[in-house]
Amino acid sequence: MHVLVNAAMSADGKLASYRREQLRISGEMDFDRVDRRRAESDAIMVGVGTVLADDPSLTRFDRNHRDAVGGTGVPARIVADSQGRTPLDAALFDGSAPTYVLTTEAASSDRLEQLEKAGATVVVAGKERVDLTAALSELERDGIETLFVEGGGELIFSLFEADLVDELSVYIGSLLIGGRDAPTLADGEGFVDEFSNLILIGVERLDDGVFLQWSVE
Amino acid sequence: MHVLVNAAMSADGKLASYRREQLRISGEMDFDRVDRRRAESDAIMVGVGTVLADDPSLTRFDRNHRDAVGGTGVPARIVADSQGRTPLDAALFDGSAPTYVLTTEAASSDRLEQLEKAGATVVVAGKERVDLTAALSELERDGIETLFVEGGGELIFSLFEADLVDELSVYIGSLLIGGRDAPTLADGEGFVDEFSNLILIGVERLDDGVFLQWSVE
Ligand SMILES: NC(=O)c1ccc[n+]([C@@H]2O[C@H](COP(=O)([O-])OP(=O)(O)OC[C@H]3O[C@@H](n4cnc5c(N)ncnc54)[C@H](OP(=O)(O)O)[C@@H]3O)[C@@H](O)[C@H]2O)c1
Ligand SMILES: NC(=O)c1ccc[n+]([C@@H]2O[C@H](COP(=O)([O-])OP(=O)(O)OC[C@H]3O[C@@H](n4cnc5c(N)ncnc54)[C@H](OP(=O)(O)O)[C@@H]3O)[C@@H](O)[C@H]2O)c1
Repeated sequence: MHVLVNAAMSADGKLASYRREQLRISGEMDFDRVDRRRAESDAIMVGVGTVLADDPSLTRFDRNHRDAVGGTGVPARIVADSQGRTPLDAALFDGSAPTYVLTTEAASSDRLEQLEKAGATVVVAGKERVDLTAALSELERDGIETLFVEGGGELIFSLFEADLVDELSVYIGSLLIGGRDAPTLADGEGFVDEFSNLILIGVERLDDGVFLQWSVE
Repeated sequence: MHVLVNAAMSADGKLASYRREQLRISGEMDFDRVDRRRAESDAIMVGVGTVLADDPSLTRFDRNHRDAVGGTGVPARIVADSQGRTPLDAALFDGSAPTYVLTTEAASSDRLEQLEKAGATVVVAGKERVDLTAALSELERDGIETLFVEGGGELIFSLFEADLVDELSVYIGSLLIGGRDAPTLADGEGFVDEFSNLILIGVERLDDGVFLQWSVE
């Protein structure tokens, strides 16, 4: 499976303010680029933190992009959600595309039944926290070959930690958000001695900011 | 006074790992660039957090750079240190350049005396936390016209909050550090509605990473 992590951050590495409200960091050209990459992907993934903060539908891309790249359906939506906290009325369950909830043995079977009724395909992997390696293998068996991860920082760090990321693309907006408690591009516990090494493969001015692409060593 | 903030961060906006140990993020070309900008400055400033973590001398720049830009002395060193926590044996007190300790009424007069004996010029500004606006005015009266701020994230945020920054330059290294508690380029409380707007004025590949320059709106 090819895993691309994509996010928009401020000049100081923040995905949002410490209030964790959605914030417009990038501009039209970047939206268009994200749209295209979404359309080329088999699935789009977020963590439940992002679902709770932003309630994204993950389908607001231009159908033309999907047509242009020859896609047949719409990309599936995936949420990493260890306890099944995704609200049953989340935009993810609008029926416009298949939706997977990756969860764990810690989620109650009642809750998982409710999520299935809301339209989710439930994948149980791990005891307390979603075992991303196992869950992604399961998705691969379902035909998902290209995964576009949109955040947030907790999920992104775990994907790097599990060595699952192939590519990182980041739009850096020309603003400073600040805040020791604001979400950053990669949160989690953090690395100490062995950091994830990246190879810079693209640098491009876009809108008022800059778009950077790295491959992962 | 012209205030330039400069730092090296990872792709995810971190200045160091959550352990706050100094880390090599940039390479030789960026060191050389920093050296040149230090040499052109009247003073180099850090927060006491950086002094306690890294014990920097802030003078390891190439004398040739200072000669080339026609400087006569070496830039002064400045530490923002509300309570006088800078160790008396800090590298800052090696006598190789004037050293200012910006502090507050909360620091004991005993401690300030000890710092002065160690070689510091003490500037008292503010009650609990250094009043940066007042302190920088005081430094300006002492002939400091160009200030090069090297971090860390707490000091940088406060300078932006007080609207004292003219320019921000950031080297982004090709690594991912992660960590919700790792220091970032701008920590502090963080902005919520009114963010600092930047204008991107330079994008340049340097070493294995990229060097970005912004002016502050
Ligand atoms: N600027 C952008 O591009 C962008 C993109 C996305 C999000 N955001 C912002 O980011 C913020 C949300 O980010 P976030 O970091 O708090 O949330 P997140 O990464 O979206 O979700 C984190 C949650 O996912 C669940 N999870 C399940 N398995 C996991 C695993 N193996 N590793 C890590 N997490 C796992 C955990 O909750 P459980 O333990 O309950 O499972 C965890 O708390 C919001 O403010 C949002 O607006 C910005
Ligand atoms: N990669 C880089 O370029 C780079 C550069 C510098 C530092 N670093 C790293 O950054 C970390 C240290 O950063 P940090 O953010 O913890 O420390 P910092 O910004 O260097 O210092 C913060 C401290 O300065 C004092 N201070 C006094 N007046 C202040 C004011 N008005 N606003 C804010 N702070 C004020 C405060 O302590 P009092 O309340 O006691 O005064 C505060 O805790 C270390 O890990 C270091 O290695 C990296």
